[in-house]
Amino acid sequence: MGTENKTIKNRLSQLRKKMKENGIDYYMIPTSDFHNSEYAADYFKVREYFCGFDGSNGTLIVSEKEAGLWTDGRYFIQAENQLAGTGVILYKMGEEGVPTMDKYLADNAKKGETLGFDGRVIPAESGEALEYLFGAKKSQLKIDKDLAEEVWTDRPSLPCHDMYVLSDELCGKSFNEKLADVRAKMMEYNTSMYLLSKLDDIMWLTNLRGNDVECNPVALSYAMITNDMFILFVQKEEITDEVRVYCQNNDIVLKDYAEYAEYLSELVLTGNILIDKRNANYLTYKLIADKAEESGYVIEDKENPTEMMKAIKNETELKNIREVYLRDSAKLTEFIYWVKENVGKIPMTEYSAAMKLDSMRAELPGFIELSFPTISAYNANAAMAHYEATEDNAAEVKAQGLLLVDSGGTYMGGTTDVTRTIVVGEISDEIKKHYTATVSGMLELANAIFKDGCTGRNVDIYARRPLWDIGIDYNHGTGHGIGYMLNVHEGPHNIRWKSSEGANKAELKPGMIVSDEPGVYIEGSHGIRIENIVEVVNRSENEYGKFYGFDHLTYVPIDLEAIDTKCMKPDAKELLNKYHKAVYDRVSPLIKDEKIKTWLKEATKEI
Amino acid sequence: MGTENKTIKNRLSQLRKKMKENGIDYYMIPTSDFHNSEYAADYFKVREYFCGFDGSNGTLIVSEKEAGLWTDGRYFIQAENQLAGTGVILYKMGEEGVPTMDKYLADNAKKGETLGFDGRVIPAESGEALEYLFGAKKSQLKIDKDLAEEVWTDRPSLPCHDMYVLSDELCGKSFNEKLADVRAKMMEYNTSMYLLSKLDDIMWLTNLRGNDVECNPVALSYAMITNDMFILFVQKEEITDEVRVYCQNNDIVLKDYAEYAEYLSELVLTGNILIDKRNANYLTYKLIADKAEESGYVIEDKENPTEMMKAIKNETELKNIREVYLRDSAKLTEFIYWVKENVGKIPMTEYSAAMKLDSMRAELPGFIELSFPTISAYNANAAMAHYEATEDNAAEVKAQGLLLVDSGGTYMGGTTDVTRTIVVGEISDEIKKHYTATVSGMLELANAIFKDGCTGRNVDIYARRPLWDIGIDYNHGTGHGIGYMLNVHEGPHNIRWKSSEGANKAELKPGMIVSDEPGVYIEGSHGIRIENIVEVVNRSENEYGKFYGFDHLTYVPIDLEAIDTKCMKPDAKELLNKYHKAVYDRVSPLIKDEKIKTWLKEATKEI
Repeated sequence: MGTENKTIKNRLSQLRKKMKENGIDYYMIPTSDFHNSEYAADYFKVREYFCGFDGSNGTLIVSEKEAGLWTDGRYFIQAENQLAGTGVILYKMGEEGVPTMDKYLADNAKKGETLGFDGRVIPAESGEALEYLFGAKKSQLKIDKDLAEEVWTDRPSLPCHDMYVLSDELCGKSFNEKLADVRAKMMEYNTSMYLLSKLDDIMWLTNLRGNDVECNPVALSYAMITNDMFILFVQKEEITDEVRVYCQNNDIVLKDYAEYAEYLSELVLTGNILIDKRNANYLTYKLIADKAEESGYVIEDKENPTEMMKAIKNETELKNIREVYLRDSAKLTEFIYWVKENVGKIPMTEYSAAMKLDSMRAELPGFIELSFPTISAYNANAAMAHYEATEDNAAEVKAQGLLLVDSGGTYMGGTTDVTRTIVVGEISDEIKKHYTATVSGMLELANAIFKDGCTGRNVDIYARRPLWDIGIDYNHGTGHGIGYMLNVHEGPHNIRWKSSEGANKAELKPGMIVSDEPGVYIEGSHGIRIENIVEVVNRSENEYGKFYGFDHLTYVPIDLEAIDTKCMKPDAKELLNKYHKAVYDRVSPLIKDEKIKTWLKEATKEI
Repeated sequence: MGTENKTIKNRLSQLRKKMKENGIDYYMIPTSDFHNSEYAADYFKVREYFCGFDGSNGTLIVSEKEAGLWTDGRYFIQAENQLAGTGVILYKMGEEGVPTMDKYLADNAKKGETLGFDGRVIPAESGEALEYLFGAKKSQLKIDKDLAEEVWTDRPSLPCHDMYVLSDELCGKSFNEKLADVRAKMMEYNTSMYLLSKLDDIMWLTNLRGNDVECNPVALSYAMITNDMFILFVQKEEITDEVRVYCQNNDIVLKDYAEYAEYLSELVLTGNILIDKRNANYLTYKLIADKAEESGYVIEDKENPTEMMKAIKNETELKNIREVYLRDSAKLTEFIYWVKENVGKIPMTEYSAAMKLDSMRAELPGFIELSFPTISAYNANAAMAHYEATEDNAAEVKAQGLLLVDSGGTYMGGTTDVTRTIVVGEISDEIKKHYTATVSGMLELANAIFKDGCTGRNVDIYARRPLWDIGIDYNHGTGHGIGYMLNVHEGPHNIRWKSSEGANKAELKPGMIVSDEPGVYIEGSHGIRIENIVEVVNRSENEYGKFYGFDHLTYVPIDLEAIDTKCMKPDAKELLNKYHKAVYDRVSPLIKDEKIKTWLKEATKEI
């Protein structure tokens, strides 16, 4: 028997009291902010507050007699530990016999009962599905209450940091040029208003940046776009003089973030509205949908047009990105040299190595912040998908095995992301075999030629095939898009082999950048991931159509100590030699230290 | 000015008279039988009767003032020629500014007007779409009239040929075992009746065969399955004594094909009904849907469960298929030898070569019929996707260039399909380059390793890549499923790179067989296609899942005279040598003639 978690039990009983006061029978707490962002600030960690589980995915459903938490396979062990003593039941998603949340609600909620949730933290699409589910049972939804507001007395405040302006020169396209493109798309859809709530889309469109989400340079905001007006809802406190002047000069009307819902509810519609139900939150969507129905206008539910515009980088962005990636690659190369030189000689932990790399990156010109917390994982730790070394728990890095480092920065001129797995001492033949297959996969995908119309699904097999050949697979996507001085994960495109319901079907187009990151994860033993970022480029065009390929953006040596040429096909070996030649040619001019340069020559030698 | 086509004009005017009598403003004539079959018998060639166009795809819409034919890019030239003088307007599908049929009807049909068509030749899914389109305009549909019946006086009768029974030994699974699987699926969907109208599914399920569609051993039929009854609707005249006894012994209730609709209309429903709206025709679907609505039952619209069961061949089928493919391969090998020995020495046309091959196949034990009309195309003719040589128009095959032969047979024990492009004389370096890339693609796809869950879309790139590398593509799918003593084109799986709305997402599973047929088509010059049939097989299974691959079923030499090793990657060359060794080892024992055996040794030598 574990000890009782009185704190959580107490919080849940206060929540149940508020539920009763508000006539709510089931209260649902998902994991999101108001914008369907990937990462949420502390203010939004309501689910963690009420059950103690702090994984990145989880939904809590509380009723009078029960509280249940739904999370996925990555978090079963962690959730079991963190829920101990709280009385909260763990529902392991995907396991045989475990009901989905929908099924649970459908089976348990009785006719006339009420499901409550904060309508701002659920996307419109999901909200409508719940509406349908409950409608069928003649039950109802209550979505305008954030009960946490009344229980969580020491709740952190909404993040609120200064915004700043990027120059048109840096962005390659002014706000007004981008706005004209967006309005053209609105016209194409026969809409006269576009409600945009995805934070990185708003940042991209306005050429503004903020600092409200860890590692993502975005400001909490909403945008309302009509044919003759652009309203930006942000927290007043975030508006610096520079931002105010910029907005005045660009006819951006500034309104307070907190007044968005009220503004919408008072709005008089004059035409159809463009909304992306995957990203708009349910509460604001309902406000506008009800209004549209009254006035006979239509809601066009389309993917944010800004998403595709943002994903296809312009020439200025690409030029800057290429330069930033080279500098970032040179810095990581120096770090790899540092690790190899010092391991076994100076005290080194996963954490201290990460700190070293972070401080090296911070020296680079135009450095703004890390694009995500550096992952530094030694040997068996690297086999855990969501391992995070802290100063206290970090393993010592000894002169044996592998150190996996996944890291990146946001700079004036681009956001980077790169993974290298570094040999720090003796490794087994099995590790070499896995490492060689991973490298082959990364290089073979980067070498793909594909026709216009292909999505990541058509090419994913190139990255996985060398691993599938030896009966191994990795349980994550092969590639994700990356923002320009923005979020390190960006849609709409990706590289994945499986189709899933509602999965994005965005075709790969020249100007997109995408990660290429196969891996091997052997529990209790080792983890290997090699990640380059590549750019989609034109290769040729003729009567058959357009043919595309990838160019590398990342130029960091791949550890030859872990390559077993016996496990490598001739074609892949040739690709590695070609890549290493390019690494040396491009990166060595950026490296001052002659010792490192000499080492790099050897580290990129032909095999 | 061309000459007037009075025959067609006269037929159209008779049709318009009947339309008027029946209160029909627009009459639509698609290209199908009552079962959404790929090929239709002469009885169903109503569209051809009324406009003269005889391509495989086309829909005619006739109104008082206009007649329009919609067809796709393959047929623009042919349709222009055949429609000349008829007054029928050609609507080139997919061309800029050309309205779709839906758009045409939506723009032209006025409120209250009626669209008529024979509800038996339109799939339920399409019929519902028209219903929706017309419902929105307060117009109506009339679907119970086949106006051709009243105009086309010398219409061919419905095809009607003897059915026959396949032994359980040959099928590997008895009708009753298959029926039990189907009923389990019906129960899974909570349905108590399954209406099946896809001809090859009915043949597969009953272990019966017929001969009502050219090259497809199927009988016109419907099946109605309940938990305790199996009714087969076929033309009485097709029931031989053997079939009658078999049906009695297996509790198959025989009813007349012509009485299907009447039977349905008198039916009393006792539960939900399983129907595949892509294959059931609209008229019978409406009958049952109206009935279901009245009685409060639900129609479950699912893909035919029989489709997947049929696609995954059982061990007996696979064993027989492997043997049949070997014999068929040996025969084609002998034919290739014959062509190479005789070209330039004896009179040879595309047609006479095809006849020679057809007669050679007919000598094989268990030969039933060709699985499709043999395609024999010389040089530039092979660049035309739908070229068909007839005795009168066939080109002479000279000792220069290439002869493409795509052919197959249905035998007791399997249906084959294979394409080889044979060097009959001098060829250019360009042709060798194209040929080598085509062969590389075929072999690289056949060599794929892929995880359970993959569809043809995940692996298609292996077949196309060597062509994409040199800026070439082919405008057809890479692979299709194939029946067992059944249709040469069979779903649900296929190998294609593009996703299209409603495209089948069937995963590749062990026991499926599928074609692997990349090609190059250079207008006015040459056409190359190399087609093997492969079988999906287990490769390994472990904690990561199941890994599959392909085994070749086809073992016919690939013409080394057209292989340019300079254009071939080392890996592909190795695959070719390995394949050729297997061809010699497996096929030479089946070849009696020592001269051919000696030639085969040379034709499959290591390069």
